[in-house]
This record gives sequence, structure tokens and C-alpha cells, in this order.
Amino acid sequence: MKLNILGCYAATPREFTNPTSQVLEVRGHLFLIDCGEGTQVQLRKYKIKFARIKHIFISHLHGDHFYGLIGLISTFRLLGRDADLHIYGPKGLKDAMFFLLKIGNSSVNYQLIFHELTSEKSELIFEDDKVTVHTIPLNHRVYTNGFLFQEKPGDRKLDINKVMDYDIEQCYYQNIKLGKDVLNKKGEIVKNEWITTAPATPKSYAFCSDTMYEESIIPIIKGVSLLYHESTFLEEHEYLCEKTKHSSAKQAATIAKKAQVQQLLLGHYSTRYKNLEEFKDEANTIFEKVWLADDGKSFDF
Amino acid sequence: MKLNILGCYAATPREFTNPTSQVLEVRGHLFLIDCGEGTQVQLRKYKIKFARIKHIFISHLHGDHFYGLIGLISTFRLLGRDADLHIYGPKGLKDAMFFLLKIGNSSVNYQLIFHELTSEKSELIFEDDKVTVHTIPLNHRVYTNGFLFQEKPGDRKLDINKVMDYDIEQCYYQNIKLGKDVLNKKGEIVKNEWITTAPATPKSYAFCSDTMYEESIIPIIKGVSLLYHESTFLEEHEYLCEKTKHSSAKQAATIAKKAQVQQLLLGHYSTRYKNLEEFKDEANTIFEKVWLADDGKSFDF
Repeated sequence: MKLNILGCYAATPREFTNPTSQVLEVRGHLFLIDCGEGTQVQLRKYKIKFARIKHIFISHLHGDHFYGLIGLISTFRLLGRDADLHIYGPKGLKDAMFFLLKIGNSSVNYQLIFHELTSEKSELIFEDDKVTVHTIPLNHRVYTNGFLFQEKPGDRKLDINKVMDYDIEQCYYQNIKLGKDVLNKKGEIVKNEWITTAPATPKSYAFCSDTMYEESIIPIIKGVSLLYHESTFLEEHEYLCEKTKHSSAKQAATIAKKAQVQQLLLGHYSTRYKNLEEFKDEANTIFEKVWLADDGKSFDF
Repeated sequence: MKLNILGCYAATPREFTNPTSQVLEVRGHLFLIDCGEGTQVQLRKYKIKFARIKHIFISHLHGDHFYGLIGLISTFRLLGRDADLHIYGPKGLKDAMFFLLKIGNSSVNYQLIFHELTSEKSELIFEDDKVTVHTIPLNHRVYTNGFLFQEKPGDRKLDINKVMDYDIEQCYYQNIKLGKDVLNKKGEIVKNEWITTAPATPKSYAFCSDTMYEESIIPIIKGVSLLYHESTFLEEHEYLCEKTKHSSAKQAATIAKKAQVQQLLLGHYSTRYKNLEEFKDEANTIFEKVWLADDGKSFDF
């Protein structure tokens, strides 16, 4: 998986920082997660192909997470898009987007398919043969979901030398990759484990923003390869977390530790802070593998 | 008057060009005209004080002219604004903005006053003791208005030496500025024209975008100090003007000539063109005083 951070700051766009938006590359998909104002410019800046975006996930309906969506929808039309576009987000988003198009006497010339989210429980919202996406119910001032992206286990890998040694016909290769035992040319059974190795461990990514400290998400994000957890505040302003329903760096790290995730990525920083390293330092007192998101950064994992 | 161009390109935002937005400074006002996506970032970039913007004029409801408005409205709230904000624009804009706030469970903590425009005729939409603003009905694919900003004539200027020579009491000075004759200390009539000079000629600015070539605007914009007229296309693509209801540089210049304006400012360029000088060259074949708008440029007039 590869995660591209287009924007990771709280509040409103500024000249050199952007509100939340990310692109997750996984098994041929480009999933866009949140779409603050200016996202389409960020997509261009980092040369991400618009046409490859077919699924957009919106966490909640605060402006810094979706005010760039209508512009992107319109730009897709101007670019002559014909592929379907699926948008997953809270109820209300669909009506708002169509209302904005309608008052401009505009429409789209591609299928715009909204998947309105209303459940308070984690649910499967996307699945194909390679990937699943589940919601992660979060605790914020409005109805909010994070998103859990999981690769499905891949095929077993042929050990081609051993396959040759056992003298197996090529037409069996697909079945071998699927984990099946096969017969060789002499009619002898060849056990799958003799001629294959395990597939790469499936990766997973959990996006959790915006939310206050919320332990109920732990079972959902257990052991993920990478957790993006918002950390709007440093410890000195932790008293604001309850009121604004945001988290501190330490709270994000505590969730990471309790959920035994492999790595933690912090973001959604309040723009009051000049030095982001302090977020890492505070989180590191609780959890070791901490990274700092920043606009334009990419993470391979 | 001073005009600051925040964005002047057609279609959608790109990394180095912005959709339509301008700030007109006139007699202490900062009037924001149109508000494409990213306008709030442009305002910050050019250090225009958010708090001084009290009137926003939206020409029409195509995205490149108003998709930045909801972000700006929200930012005003975050900045703790308490001054009233007046927004003048087509019917539908108000409902759209309140709908977007509502689905995010948001509101504003200042007075947000919409002035919905529906008239097909030019009308006075703003007036104080120094300035008037009238609509300019344009001809585009949706209901569209340009805006005519006019200074009112200022006070006559005292010639202080002559005022002293005529021995006039200071309490009469305000009346003299207003053009009245007064009595001097001896009780003699002093004619206003003996002791004052004419005020500076009032300036005027006409914003006309988006529109196709439309001669009915000529009487409204007659003789303005500066006309901003859209010129989406060059002559080679003039065949697109009728269909898209946009103008070419030559058509903009023809309007400028027929309306006997003092200066013409071109903008709203299609992003297909690399060299903006061609717009000026083509317009210059019809009208002499032509300027090219570009993002970040300012014009004093």
C-alpha cells in the first residue's frame, strides 16, 4: 500500500497547508479519503491521475473534510469522465452535491453513485476480489466514520524450480496458486506446501479522523499495518479534546498501543503549533513507531 | 479605486491559476467579487484583511465563480467574526450555503445577510454616502449579473488661501464643501465657485463575467473608468462563443469601444491558451487601452 497525504491540517486552508485529503494506492485502486477545499489542486500538484479515482470516502460533513468535493465532481465532468464515481459518506452529502449542481444548471455526464452511511456500527461498504473497506464509527461532534482498508490474502507463490522438479503440467499452476494439491505427470500427488511459499501478509490501513479518544475502535483496527489517527492537540491543550471532540498526540498513541498496530501516523494538527516534532515526541512516550503526516509526503508500507 | 485580481481563469483551479475572484478597494470598502474555489487562500496570500470584507457579489452559480464561498463563510466563523456579511447573488445561493452549513451541524456567529437577485433589469443593490452598486444583466448559460461600482461625486475642495482672503468663519467650511454660497464676517455673500475647486471625477468599475457579446449592457457601462470584460476565447475559437455563451477578446474590445469606456481589462481566459499576450493583441485591433488581468496583479485607476 502507498499513502499520499494531500492535506493533513485542521481548520481552513492556508497558503502552505491544506485540509484533510489522502490518496491510498492499493492493488490497482486509488482511493480518495476526504476532500477538503483545494484537493483537486493538490491532486494535480502531485500528478495523481484523476481518471483512476473511482471511489471517494468522506468521513464527516465538516467543511475541512468535504468542501473540495463539489469542485472535483465538476472537474471530472469538464474532463469528459465516463467512468462511474462512487462516493461513500454521511447522509446529506448526496443532496448537497446535487443541489449545488442544480442551482448552476449543471449535471454530470458519468454515473455519480452515492453510498449514504448512517450506521453506528462498523459495516462492510466496499469489496472486490482484492480489497475490503469497512467503516470505523468515530466519536466527533457530528456523525463520523473512519475507514479500514484491508487487502485480501494474495495467491500462494509458485517455487518454479520445485514445480519443475516435480514435473507438473502448466495447466495446474493456477490451482497451485490457490493452495490446491495436484497430480504430476506420473499421477503422483504433490502437496501444495512442497512447491509454494506463503503469499505476502495482507496489508491494512485504518484512517481515523476526526475523533476524540474512543476505545471502541480498538477491536476494529486491531493490528493494522498503519493507523492514521488524528492528533489535533498537544498535551498542553488536552483540556480542549473533550469539548471539541478531537484527540491529543498521546491519546492517538494510546489507541495505537492498545490496538497493537504496527505503525502510527499522526495528522490533523491544529494550526496553532509551529513545530510538528512535538507531536512525535509526545506520542513516542507511549508508542514507538510514530510518523508525522505532512502535505505532499508519501508512505509505503 | 484599486482592483486586486485573485483569480481570472476559466474552468477549474490548477496549481498555478485560479478561478474568478477579485477584490475592489473603493472609498474604504473591500468588495469581493466572485469566489471560486481557493479564494480564501488567495486572500491570505495577498494579505487582504478578511475582517474588512463586508460585501460579496456573486455573478452566477457556476462552480468556478462560487465554490470557494462556503469555505470563506466557515472561515469567517472560525476567526470569530462578528461584523455582518452581505452576500449579493442569484436565488438559490442562500439555500445552498445554509444547506451546507446545516449538514455539518454548523452555523455562523455573525449576521449572514443574503440579497437574492432575480431581476432581468439593472437594479441598485447597494448604496451608501460614497458608493453605489448596480447589477448589469449579462447573457450566459445561467442567470448572471455583472456589477457596476460607482463612486459618488466627492465634496468640492476648499481653496484655503481664498477662504482666508474672504475672511470666512470656520463653521461654514462644511457647507462650502457641499457647494453652498456663504456669508463672510462682514455679511457679504461669497460665491462658492470663488473659493472652491471641483472634486475629483468619480471613478467607476464594471465587472462583466461570464457573458457572450451583449450590446444591451452598453448603456449601463457607458464611459466607465475601467471595464473588466471576460474574454474566454481568441478569434480562432470564436465559433465556440455562441454555444458556450462566452466572449472573445475582440468582442470584449468591441463592447469597450461602443461603450466608450476609458480602459478595458481582459480575463476569464480559457486554460487552452499558453500566451495571454495574444488576447491583448487581438483586442488592440479594436480598442487601444487594453490590460491583461492575471492572478496576483493589481490595477489602480
